Amino acid sequence: MIGIGVIGCGYWGPNLIRNFNSQPQAKLIAISDLDEKRLNQVGLLYPDTRKTANYEDLVNDPAIDAVVVATPMSTHFKLGMAALEAGKHVFIEKPMATNSDDCRTLIAAAAARNLKLMVGHTFVYSPPVRMIKSLLDDGELGDIYYVNIARVNLGIFQKDANVIWDLAPHDVAMLNFLFGAEPVAVSATGHCYVQKELGIEDVAFVTLEYPGGRLVHIHVSWLDPKKIRTCTFVGSSKMLVYDDVSPSEKIRVYDKGVDVQPHYEGFGEFQLQYRSGDVFLPHVDTYEPLKAEAAHFLDMIQDKVVCQSDGTHGLKVVEVLEAACLSLKDDGRRIALELIG
Amino acid sequence: MIGIGVIGCGYWGPNLIRNFNSQPQAKLIAISDLDEKRLNQVGLLYPDTRKTANYEDLVNDPAIDAVVVATPMSTHFKLGMAALEAGKHVFIEKPMATNSDDCRTLIAAAAARNLKLMVGHTFVYSPPVRMIKSLLDDGELGDIYYVNIARVNLGIFQKDANVIWDLAPHDVAMLNFLFGAEPVAVSATGHCYVQKELGIEDVAFVTLEYPGGRLVHIHVSWLDPKKIRTCTFVGSSKMLVYDDVSPSEKIRVYDKGVDVQPHYEGFGEFQLQYRSGDVFLPHVDTYEPLKAEAAHFLDMIQDKVVCQSDGTHGLKVVEVLEAACLSLKDDGRRIALELIG
Amino acid sequence: MIGIGVIGCGYWGPNLIRNFNSQPQAKLIAISDLDEKRLNQVGLLYPDTRKTANYEDLVNDPAIDAVVVATPMSTHFKLGMAALEAGKHVFIEKPMATNSDDCRTLIAAAAARNLKLMVGHTFVYSPPVRMIKSLLDDGELGDIYYVNIARVNLGIFQKDANVIWDLAPHDVAMLNFLFGAEPVAVSATGHCYVQKELGIEDVAFVTLEYPGGRLVHIHVSWLDPKKIRTCTFVGSSKMLVYDDVSPSEKIRVYDKGVDVQPHYEGFGEFQLQYRSGDVFLPHVDTYEPLKAEAAHFLDMIQDKVVCQSDGTHGLKVVEVLEAACLSLKDDGRRIALELIG
Amino acid sequence: MIGIGVIGCGYWGPNLIRNFNSQPQAKLIAISDLDEKRLNQVGLLYPDTRKTANYEDLVNDPAIDAVVVATPMSTHFKLGMAALEAGKHVFIEKPMATNSDDCRTLIAAAAARNLKLMVGHTFVYSPPVRMIKSLLDDGELGDIYYVNIARVNLGIFQKDANVIWDLAPHDVAMLNFLFGAEPVAVSATGHCYVQKELGIEDVAFVTLEYPGGRLVHIHVSWLDPKKIRTCTFVGSSKMLVYDDVSPSEKIRVYDKGVDVQPHYEGFGEFQLQYRSGDVFLPHVDTYEPLKAEAAHFLDMIQDKVVCQSDGTHGLKVVEVLEAACLSLKDDGRRIALELIG
Repeated sequence: MIGIGVIGCGYWGPNLIRNFNSQPQAKLIAISDLDEKRLNQVGLLYPDTRKTANYEDLVNDPAIDAVVVATPMSTHFKLGMAALEAGKHVFIEKPMATNSDDCRTLIAAAAARNLKLMVGHTFVYSPPVRMIKSLLDDGELGDIYYVNIARVNLGIFQKDANVIWDLAPHDVAMLNFLFGAEPVAVSATGHCYVQKELGIEDVAFVTLEYPGGRLVHIHVSWLDPKKIRTCTFVGSSKMLVYDDVSPSEKIRVYDKGVDVQPHYEGFGEFQLQYRSGDVFLPHVDTYEPLKAEAAHFLDMIQDKVVCQSDGTHGLKVVEVLEAACLSLKDDGRRIALELIG
Repeated sequence: MIGIGVIGCGYWGPNLIRNFNSQPQAKLIAISDLDEKRLNQVGLLYPDTRKTANYEDLVNDPAIDAVVVATPMSTHFKLGMAALEAGKHVFIEKPMATNSDDCRTLIAAAAARNLKLMVGHTFVYSPPVRMIKSLLDDGELGDIYYVNIARVNLGIFQKDANVIWDLAPHDVAMLNFLFGAEPVAVSATGHCYVQKELGIEDVAFVTLEYPGGRLVHIHVSWLDPKKIRTCTFVGSSKMLVYDDVSPSEKIRVYDKGVDVQPHYEGFGEFQLQYRSGDVFLPHVDTYEPLKAEAAHFLDMIQDKVVCQSDGTHGLKVVEVLEAACLSLKDDGRRIALELIG
Repeated sequence: MIGIGVIGCGYWGPNLIRNFNSQPQAKLIAISDLDEKRLNQVGLLYPDTRKTANYEDLVNDPAIDAVVVATPMSTHFKLGMAALEAGKHVFIEKPMATNSDDCRTLIAAAAARNLKLMVGHTFVYSPPVRMIKSLLDDGELGDIYYVNIARVNLGIFQKDANVIWDLAPHDVAMLNFLFGAEPVAVSATGHCYVQKELGIEDVAFVTLEYPGGRLVHIHVSWLDPKKIRTCTFVGSSKMLVYDDVSPSEKIRVYDKGVDVQPHYEGFGEFQLQYRSGDVFLPHVDTYEPLKAEAAHFLDMIQDKVVCQSDGTHGLKVVEVLEAACLSLKDDGRRIALELIG
Repeated sequence: MIGIGVIGCGYWGPNLIRNFNSQPQAKLIAISDLDEKRLNQVGLLYPDTRKTANYEDLVNDPAIDAVVVATPMSTHFKLGMAALEAGKHVFIEKPMATNSDDCRTLIAAAAARNLKLMVGHTFVYSPPVRMIKSLLDDGELGDIYYVNIARVNLGIFQKDANVIWDLAPHDVAMLNFLFGAEPVAVSATGHCYVQKELGIEDVAFVTLEYPGGRLVHIHVSWLDPKKIRTCTFVGSSKMLVYDDVSPSEKIRVYDKGVDVQPHYEGFGEFQLQYRSGDVFLPHVDTYEPLKAEAAHFLDMIQDKVVCQSDGTHGLKVVEVLEAACLSLKDDGRRIALELIG
C-alpha cells in the first residue's frame, strides 16, 4: 500500500482526494489546506484520514510515500520541493510551475533522490485523447497536415495569469502526447480587452510548429458567447474532429480528403480528386480521466509503467507557454524552441 | 430604361443575368461568352436578348448603358477598361482586379469619363449583413472588441490563386462595410499542403487591425471536413454570432458579457461581473442579395444612392489581400496599411 | 426513343419535364397546361417541344408513347384514364387518385390494354431510402420493432385535403417499399385547429401495423415551428435515424440496443444487457431522385425492370389513406385493412 | 426549526437529504434505509444526524415534524400512512402510490389529522417549467392548440412498471400544473418488445384531452437511440419548444403562426397568413429544482404557501396513469376521466 497525502482542498483537490482514496493500491493518509473550515468540510467524507492545516506535518509524515500538490500554481514549486526533500514521490497539478527553471530544479531534485515526479495533465489520460492517440499511431488519418483548436468561453478571468497560461496547457500537453514530440517553434498574438489596465490578455492565438511541418493553431479566449472545445485534425487520408463539449459524440472521423495524383508533368495536368465518404463516430469510454491518472501515478511509483506526463513532459509544456508569452510581447515573432529548451 | 450587357455566362454570370433581367428599371440587351455552346444554352431563357461570342460587339452596342463583367478575375481589368473606354458604366465581380494598381487605373478611368464603377461584393447586400450593420450602428453590441471568422470547407482548390484571394475578399468587404473603415495593419500566415509543389496556400490565418483597436481574426481553408461560415462579434455589451450556413438561424445576439466596475483603487479591488442573459434570433429577410445588388447598381447610375461597394471599396479590399500575401511571404510580419494604401 | 408528353406545368411539372428531357432513352414531344402564360414560360427552355393548352391534343399525339400526369390530385383519374384509353403508358403523380376505386379502375384499364402504369412516389427512388432498404434487407438492424416518424412544419395549409392526404403518402409509400409489405391495420386521430370551420385536420397521428408486429407511428402536422423530417427505426440489433432535413448527415446507424439473455427461469433472473457502441454515418449519394424515377419509368416501359411503384403500389397507399381517414372520423378506431383492400 | 426525517437513501434520497439539510428553516434529524451499508455511507456527510435501519424509529421520533419518503413506489403508501398516523407531515416521491385508491386514503388520513401532504413532482419546481407557466399565464402564446412531447431514451427497463408509469408522471404533473386543469379524457397505445414475456410495455403513445380542446400527445419509450426530452407547445399566437436535454438553450419561443382572417364568406375567400418572425431564447435560471421543492414543502407546513403539488395533485396524476393503462389494455379506447376521478 502506498501512503498518500494531498495538499490543497480547493476546487480541484477533492477530485484528487476521492480518486486516490478509491485506488486499491493506495491509502489516503492525510489531507491539508490552509483554510481549516474547507479542510474539515472536505474531510467529513474521510473520517480515518488525518487533517492538518500545516503542510509540513503532512510532508514529514512517515506513513506517507507520495505527496499530491493541488494548490495555486504559484506554490507548486515550493510545495513540490518540500515534498521531494522529505523523500516523497510527487504529483503536481498543471502547470508544473510558473517558469521552466523551477521545473528543471524539481526534475533534478527528484532525480538526485531517485524519486518519481508526475504532472497532472489530465487530458493525457482522458478516453477521447487516448482514442485519438491510437488512431494517429495506427496511421488512420495519414500524415497530419495541421490541427486547429478552439478553447473559448465566457470567463473565468484570472488576475495572476493570462489566458494562455490558463487554457493552453491542456492543448500543449495533449499535442505533445499525441505527436510524441515537442514544438520546434512558437508564435502568439494576444489582446487585453476586459483587464486592459492589468495588462492581462483575455484572447490569444498561438501557433505551434511540430517536426515534419505539422502545424497547430490554437485560439484561447475568455471572451466568447459559447463554450467551445474543438480540435480539428486534418490528415492526408482522413480528418477528425474532437468536440469535448459534446456529451455523447466527442469524436468524428471523416473519410474526406483531397488526393493528388502522384505523377503529373505540368501545371495544366495537375489533378485533384475529392473524397467525401462515410463519417464514423466511435464509441468512447466514459471513465473518469482522473481515476486513470491516479492509477498511473501509483503504477509509476512501483515501476510498472513509463510515465506519460512526467516532470520532463511538464517542463516541455511550460517551455512552450514561456515562449508563447515572449512572442506575445514581441508582436507575434516566431520563437524557435531549440534556443530555449 | 437602362440597357444592360453581361459578359460571362459561366458559374456566376447566369445569376447576374437573371437578376438584371428582372429589374423594372433595366433592359437586358446582350450577353456574351467565349464558349458559344454555353452562351446559347444560357440564352434560351432570354429569346429577345442578343448573344455574341465577341465582347467587343457588346461593349460597343449603343443600346447598352452599363456593362456587367462576370469573367475570371484575370480578365476583370481588361474588360472593365474596354467598357469604360466605350463610355459604359461598369459593374465588376469581386475581386475587382489582381492587383491594386489595376484597381486605381479603373477608378481613374471611370472618374475621367464621369462613369459609375461598382464591384460585386454581394455580402454587402445580403440580409444578415445588413441586419448586423444596423445592430452595430445602433450600438447594440457596445464597442466591438474583436471578430473571429472561420470560412473553411473541403475544396475547391484553385490553381491560380491562393485561399486568401479565393475566400477572404468576402470577409474584408463585409468588415470594411460594417465598420465603415479599413484596416490599419494586416498580418497573415499560411501553408501549402495539397498543392505544395505549386506553392499555393490552402490554409491561412489572417489578422486585421481596424482603427480603435478592433481586431479581426480570419481562418480560411480549403482543407476542412465541414463547411463552416461563422463570424463571432465580441462587443463590450453583447456578443453576436453570424452563421451563414444555418438555413434559418443565421444571427444570434447573446446578452452576455463581462462588466468591469468603473472605479477601483488596487489590484485586489478589481471586480468583474458576468452577465449571461437572453439570446435573441432576429428574423432575417430571405430575399436574394444579388437582386438588391443589381437594383443598387441601377440606382447608382441614376444618382439615387451612394454606392456601398464602389471602385474605392473594391480597391481597399484588394489592398488588404495584397498586404496579407506580402505578410504571408515574410513569416507573418505585421504590414501597416498606410504605407501601401 | 420513347416519346413523352407531360400534362401540368405547375409547381412540380417542370421538374418532371426537365428530368424526362434529359433521359437518353426519351424524347420530350409535348407539354400541356391550362394556363397558357405558365405553359409558354416553362416552354422557353424547350424550343423544340410542342406546347398545347388542350390536354387532348397531347394525349392523342401519335408521336407520344407515354403520358406524365402532374396536375392537381382531383384530375389524376380523368387524365390518367384519357391517356390509357388513347393507348399511352401513364406516369401519375402521387397520390394516385382521390379514392381507391378510381385506382382500381386505372389499374384495370392499363392491364386490359397491356400498358404500363406507374405512380410518382419519389421517395422510393431517393438515395437515403435506397440505402435504408439495403441495410434492412441485409439484416443490419435485426428485426424491426417499430418506426417513429415526424413530418411536421408550418403550413402549407391545403383547402381540399387534410394533412394526412397531403403529407402521409410519402411515409406510407416509403414503408411499403422498405418492408415489402402493406399494413394490416391502421388507426388515426387528428385535429382541426386553423381550418376548424372547414373541418380540415391540420395535425394528425397515424399508426400502422405491419405484418410481424412491426409498428409505425407517424406524426404529420402543418402547425409546428420547425420543419422536421425524421424517421427512427428501432431494430433488435441496431437503430437507425433518417433525417431528411439534414443537408449532409441524413442517415445515422446506432450500434445500440438491449439484449435479452435467451434463457431464464423466473422473474428475478430476467437479465438485460445494454449496448451502446459506435455510430456510423454512411455516405449517401446525392443524385436527384426524380432522375432515377424517370429512368425507372422508361425501363419499365421497355420491360427492363419490375416497377417499384406501379399502380398496385399506388393503390395500396391510397387504401391506407382512406382507412386512416375512416379511423379519424371514428375516434381513432383500429381499421383492419383486409376488410378494405 | 422543522425537524426532518428522510426514509430511503437509494438513488434519489441523498439529493433530498442534501437539500433539506441545507434549508435554514429545517433541521435534518434522522435518515433511514434498510441497507445499513448504504445508510452509513450516505450518513458520513451528516455526522450529527441519527441513522436507523428501522423506519419506525424515525417515524416515531418526537424531534421529527415531517417525514420524507424516497423509497420504491410500492412502499409509498405504507410508509406515508405510517408517518401520517404518527402525526407527521409527509412528503412522498412521485408517483404518489401504485393506485388512486391508496392516494385517496393518504389524502383523507392527512386531512383528518390536519397534516400536510405533498408529492415530489420536481418538474413543477424546475426553472424552465416555471418560466413556461409564466409565459402561458401572460397569454404570450395565445390559446394553446396542442402540445407534443417526446420523452425517450435507451433504457432503463423497469421490471415492475411499464414505461408509462416510469416516464409519463413527469409530463402529466407538468401539464396539470401549467394548464391549472386536469385531462377530461385519456387514450394510450403501447407495445412490449424487449420484455414481451413479462408483458411490460417499453414504448407507448398517450393522448390527453384537456378542457378547451387542448390536446397533448406524449411519446414515452425505453427503446430509442437518443435521449430526447422535448415539449412543443403550439399556440394561436406563438409556439414554444422546451428541450430539457439542451444544457443552455432549454426554451425557444418562436414568433410563428398562421392567422386566419376573422371574416370570410365562402370557401374561396378563406384566407391564411403565415407569420415567421423572431426566435427568443430567454435566460432560464439554473437553481436546483429540488432546493425550491424542499423550501416549498417547509413553507407549506408553515402555511406560507398553497402547495402546487399536494396530495390532490398527486392523485390526479395517478388517475391519469391508471386510465392510460386501462386504455392500453383496450386497444387505445378513449377513457373519459369524469367516470373515474
